[in-house]
Amino acid sequence: MSHDLSTFTDPRSVAVVGASPDPAKWGYWLARGALRGAHRRSVHLVNAKRATIDGTPSVASLRELPEPPELVVLCAPAASVPAVVQEALELGVKGFLGITAGIDTAHGEPGLERRIAARIRAAGARIVGPNCLGIYDAAHQLELAWGSFRPGSLAVVSQSGQLGLEIAGLASHAGLGISRFVSIGNQVDVTAVDVLDDLVDHETTKAVVLYLEGFDDGRAVLAAMARLRDAGKPVVVLTVGASEASRAAARSHTGALTAATDVVSAACRAVGAVLVDTPVQAVDLAHLLLGSPLPAGRRVAVVSDSGGQGAIAADTLAREGLQVPRLAPGTSEQLAALLPAAAGVANPIDLAGAGEQDLTTYARVVETLLESGEIDTVVLSGYFGCYGDDTPELVERELGVVKTLGDTVRVYGRPVIVHSMSHDSDAVQLMRASAVPTLHTIDAVARSLGVVADLVEQSGGPLPPVAESTAGAGRALPYLEARARVAGTGVRYPAAQAVHSAAEVRRAADRLTAPYVLKAGWLEHKTDVGGVAVNLVDADAAVASFTEMAAGLGDGEYVLEEMDARADTVELIVGARRDPCFGPLVLVGTGGVQAEVYGDVQLALAPVTPDEARRMVESLRAHRILTGWRGRPAVDVEDAAAVVAAVSRLLAEEPDVVECEVNPLRVGPDGAVAVDALMFAVPRHGDDSNNDRNHDDASGPTGAQP
Amino acid sequence: MSHDLSTFTDPRSVAVVGASPDPAKWGYWLARGALRGAHRRSVHLVNAKRATIDGTPSVASLRELPEPPELVVLCAPAASVPAVVQEALELGVKGFLGITAGIDTAHGEPGLERRIAARIRAAGARIVGPNCLGIYDAAHQLELAWGSFRPGSLAVVSQSGQLGLEIAGLASHAGLGISRFVSIGNQVDVTAVDVLDDLVDHETTKAVVLYLEGFDDGRAVLAAMARLRDAGKPVVVLTVGASEASRAAARSHTGALTAATDVVSAACRAVGAVLVDTPVQAVDLAHLLLGSPLPAGRRVAVVSDSGGQGAIAADTLAREGLQVPRLAPGTSEQLAALLPAAAGVANPIDLAGAGEQDLTTYARVVETLLESGEIDTVVLSGYFGCYGDDTPELVERELGVVKTLGDTVRVYGRPVIVHSMSHDSDAVQLMRASAVPTLHTIDAVARSLGVVADLVEQSGGPLPPVAESTAGAGRALPYLEARARVAGTGVRYPAAQAVHSAAEVRRAADRLTAPYVLKAGWLEHKTDVGGVAVNLVDADAAVASFTEMAAGLGDGEYVLEEMDARADTVELIVGARRDPCFGPLVLVGTGGVQAEVYGDVQLALAPVTPDEARRMVESLRAHRILTGWRGRPAVDVEDAAAVVAAVSRLLAEEPDVVECEVNPLRVGPDGAVAVDALMFAVPRHGDDSNNDRNHDDASGPTGAQP
Repeated sequence: MSHDLSTFTDPRSVAVVGASPDPAKWGYWLARGALRGAHRRSVHLVNAKRATIDGTPSVASLRELPEPPELVVLCAPAASVPAVVQEALELGVKGFLGITAGIDTAHGEPGLERRIAARIRAAGARIVGPNCLGIYDAAHQLELAWGSFRPGSLAVVSQSGQLGLEIAGLASHAGLGISRFVSIGNQVDVTAVDVLDDLVDHETTKAVVLYLEGFDDGRAVLAAMARLRDAGKPVVVLTVGASEASRAAARSHTGALTAATDVVSAACRAVGAVLVDTPVQAVDLAHLLLGSPLPAGRRVAVVSDSGGQGAIAADTLAREGLQVPRLAPGTSEQLAALLPAAAGVANPIDLAGAGEQDLTTYARVVETLLESGEIDTVVLSGYFGCYGDDTPELVERELGVVKTLGDTVRVYGRPVIVHSMSHDSDAVQLMRASAVPTLHTIDAVARSLGVVADLVEQSGGPLPPVAESTAGAGRALPYLEARARVAGTGVRYPAAQAVHSAAEVRRAADRLTAPYVLKAGWLEHKTDVGGVAVNLVDADAAVASFTEMAAGLGDGEYVLEEMDARADTVELIVGARRDPCFGPLVLVGTGGVQAEVYGDVQLALAPVTPDEARRMVESLRAHRILTGWRGRPAVDVEDAAAVVAAVSRLLAEEPDVVECEVNPLRVGPDGAVAVDALMFAVPRHGDDSNNDRNHDDASGPTGAQP
Repeated sequence: MSHDLSTFTDPRSVAVVGASPDPAKWGYWLARGALRGAHRRSVHLVNAKRATIDGTPSVASLRELPEPPELVVLCAPAASVPAVVQEALELGVKGFLGITAGIDTAHGEPGLERRIAARIRAAGARIVGPNCLGIYDAAHQLELAWGSFRPGSLAVVSQSGQLGLEIAGLASHAGLGISRFVSIGNQVDVTAVDVLDDLVDHETTKAVVLYLEGFDDGRAVLAAMARLRDAGKPVVVLTVGASEASRAAARSHTGALTAATDVVSAACRAVGAVLVDTPVQAVDLAHLLLGSPLPAGRRVAVVSDSGGQGAIAADTLAREGLQVPRLAPGTSEQLAALLPAAAGVANPIDLAGAGEQDLTTYARVVETLLESGEIDTVVLSGYFGCYGDDTPELVERELGVVKTLGDTVRVYGRPVIVHSMSHDSDAVQLMRASAVPTLHTIDAVARSLGVVADLVEQSGGPLPPVAESTAGAGRALPYLEARARVAGTGVRYPAAQAVHSAAEVRRAADRLTAPYVLKAGWLEHKTDVGGVAVNLVDADAAVASFTEMAAGLGDGEYVLEEMDARADTVELIVGARRDPCFGPLVLVGTGGVQAEVYGDVQLALAPVTPDEARRMVESLRAHRILTGWRGRPAVDVEDAAAVVAAVSRLLAEEPDVVECEVNPLRVGPDGAVAVDALMFAVPRHGDDSNNDRNHDDASGPTGAQP
């Protein structure tokens, strides 16, 4: 089986089987598109009635051709596909592009498509699709697809053909072209991963938009996206409800707190890719990824020829998490020298007519800002790009300023993003060609720049390796055992001891320091059934609580634990679980009601480094509570981050652990203390049982924490 | 002074003073535009050098004209404007359209523009601007503005000329036309309110987009928007950082919790208008407001010719607060009869090729859905609108389906919104003309439909009357006095008593029920300085706490209050304040950290009815905590809403109250109890002092609450 996909992207010869003279049929579009590449490759049309299509004659079967084609496009009715494939394989055809849909249904044979694919692979050939809308490759003048394409440098790989066409159409409408379009259809042989891998060395492709509905092969997709990232080709991802099942299967809060798309988003971030919600968001973002330098940070200067537009731009950028900072006095003075007295030199910068009086003012203001080193991106918002269209006398002058802007971007290596009231003037087109991304709404500029700012803050490292997981959902470990496993990674717990009788409770109380907490340690959801009693002030209270709890819940392994009664703590939830598609994930969120009601959680592919964990904690909206809320002392965010990193490593390194949660983690000024542990695990190789270890562990705060 | 603006929107004669032959100058654009209406009115050009402009001769001054023009367009240099105005007034000119900017600066005379305006008004004439980009009126073929316009039914009124042009340009690009464009500039005479009022009876205008930077005259703007609403003309509002000053001036949390734009948004909601963030959001929304019926609710059926696009559409709609509900079995069966076996009849509905095979399927599926009564809106997403462009043979058939869709919308009075991959095909244009709003991205459809769904849930009543406010910021009332004023509106408080000595504390403790709270009642921010002690279990504890507090804070009016120690309560914050632009506002939010960190607050123009207050509480994201969180009992939302309504009436009806806050309001299953009160008030007419009343009020729970 060949990994080279050139049979599909640059075949020496192609035959369209099921070519049609009816313009409403796909067989017509595929034939017409194929013929457009006839100067580059042999193109044959196969039509059962030997119809002439757009002036080109056809033959009735592949056998009538003078030579066997390298690639066969399958547009024939589903009923005839097996026979066509058989004939083609006998002739030595190397590739099939399966447009035809519903082959299994037409034959009443579930799995037929996959059996045909197996036959094709056995013959040393390959198939893309079926049920796809085809392939386009600009550099190879290959148009084996429905639709029409504008050549460019954006690749589109889509599991839904029509959604792929929408992306390509929106790109074209916005002045961006397509380097390659692959509708992967049912992926019975060639998969998204194969197609992504083939783009790593595809010279004309500078960025990729990928639409996938399923991530069964999630780790492989991530690895392919990491290779594209390493080749300098960012991937923008679209999906719908992917891995919803994996979420439904989770049993801890860690599962309930994350939407399916959050998981895909976290996985993408780990490999420098980015998940967006809709086709137009992907295209808007692509503008910023195709050639322009990426910003080093979030500081934006807004330059506008209208005070109103500048203010709207600043507000819109701020809503997307960007900063529009005050400028240093020196920079303001330099700008003031370029502008009329009436102009404001605050940020946003209002040109107040200076651009109209002298178009080069635009370029000089932009250069002054880039040179200052105070800002990461200049956003130019308003009329620029319209001068030439409205006033033909100004065409050349405006294009000259565009050229200067392009040069300035190259010199300073910082982006200039333009929001122009013109959709596609010559100036706008030249800006797009000069690595000065130009969009038609400030909304698109701000949202895309916000996403890019996130992107540059993401991990640039290799996909972290993880232990192969043992299959199975696992069972809940008893509390002390779960606690011991978490404590073993360096997470601090209060001292605790297993107790089975009132006498043991009293003895344990003597060893531990009050106040105490009593827990019915063998119960998975102990809080919900009255299996946790807190604030037991002395041994008598502990014994009384035990007597009462045991009367209700019966015998079992109870745990007496010192209560973390520190003041000024903030509660977090830290959890990790094994996603069936992407592998281990780690989550941190604000504790209690907030995490659920406000969705204040951060998710990442595990393991994360302490640095990455700190960035997760800092990204919580509740971060300001951690850093000293209304005069309260700041809590130890580094230690909280250390717990997040430790829990993430636990999942990544220990294959028997399916899910693990610390809820709450109490973080105070002097560090983080875990006061619960929930763990689901499968029996480890060589274990008879995990059930009888660590029960008398009384690891104290000083013991577990270095 | 005439209130009739026809001088500006349909003058019998117009003279452009400062007309220019230079295409880069505004004087050229205004002259050219004016000449386009020469078949309807006399158009004169005035140029100091008597230049010929686009073939039309000019005169050197207004006096040289055969007749005085009704309207003068001022494009002349700022230095000459006063003389031109003087001459024009002597000739009997009735209106001035002030394009020229910087008149004050050019003359070094601050306030000159306003003095000129006064002179104009004194002569019985009026002026729009100066510093504006002009006026366009489609029905009257009046083009006295920079830019070019597509005629239609959307009015644009903008304080920033260029932002107004951006709105008009985006509308045109999206296939919508403009009925009237008014750049109001510096509003030295004719204001936004005048222009809005003039649109009430403007026949061609069906909806309005308004951009304002300031709302000094906020109540008048609201009244004008209410009149437009009553005329069936919704107003979409854009602003930037408006009334930031009023926010900065607020001293309670109620102020800190609301952004300036939240205030504008709340004010707009009260009169059926809607605030959006950007020009393109305004235009996208306008599509849905121009002729199409509004949806009765949030239930949407998604119909797509692509599974991928249908799924993206459903996800995007859900993110905007819309519902994509499961269909009833009967409806599913009816749909199944229209579709091939492979099609899904879940919602989103995947046509699975049925549309391609028979274009009328689109219309029949849509009609089945509208007829079902199960859904409020059908969103059609994908290829429809492209058939005719891609396959000329299908043009007529597709247009026929569009016609059917338009008829269906009329018959059922429910909207059909289309997301089409075509930007402007004939089919798309016909849909827009047939009250079937058609947009180019699913993002725009979903966001706009979400806003419209909010809009129909808004109050449709008249602008609530409010008492005229006394000027001044007010002073903080002592706690017991503030409490008594709030309690007087029917809000329940625990029993309390003023205490000034340990002996009084002990006597009060005997009368009240433990546990107690002790408060240093005269302090504005008593919590921050140790002026509140809670959970005082008996008289001894109360006395001890008093002795300690008095040692630190000195003499003053302390208050001993019963502590609301009910279980299962949720804390809210309720506040009201007097906004300098819009008048009384009321706010409800979740208590404590949540309101501030997560911004979980709802704001409305006061007063609100108990029903409106309940909707505010229900709109909090934390509403699910109120309705029974994890097995806890639901709390009394009606009673919480009653407090919100009562506090809102207090501000609306009592002119001396500037700001009032109940924080927290503790809401339990058996009702809401206020446990604090902060009030700023100015001295009331006839009051010598507010300071010596109510101090021994011991209103108990039963006393204050009916």
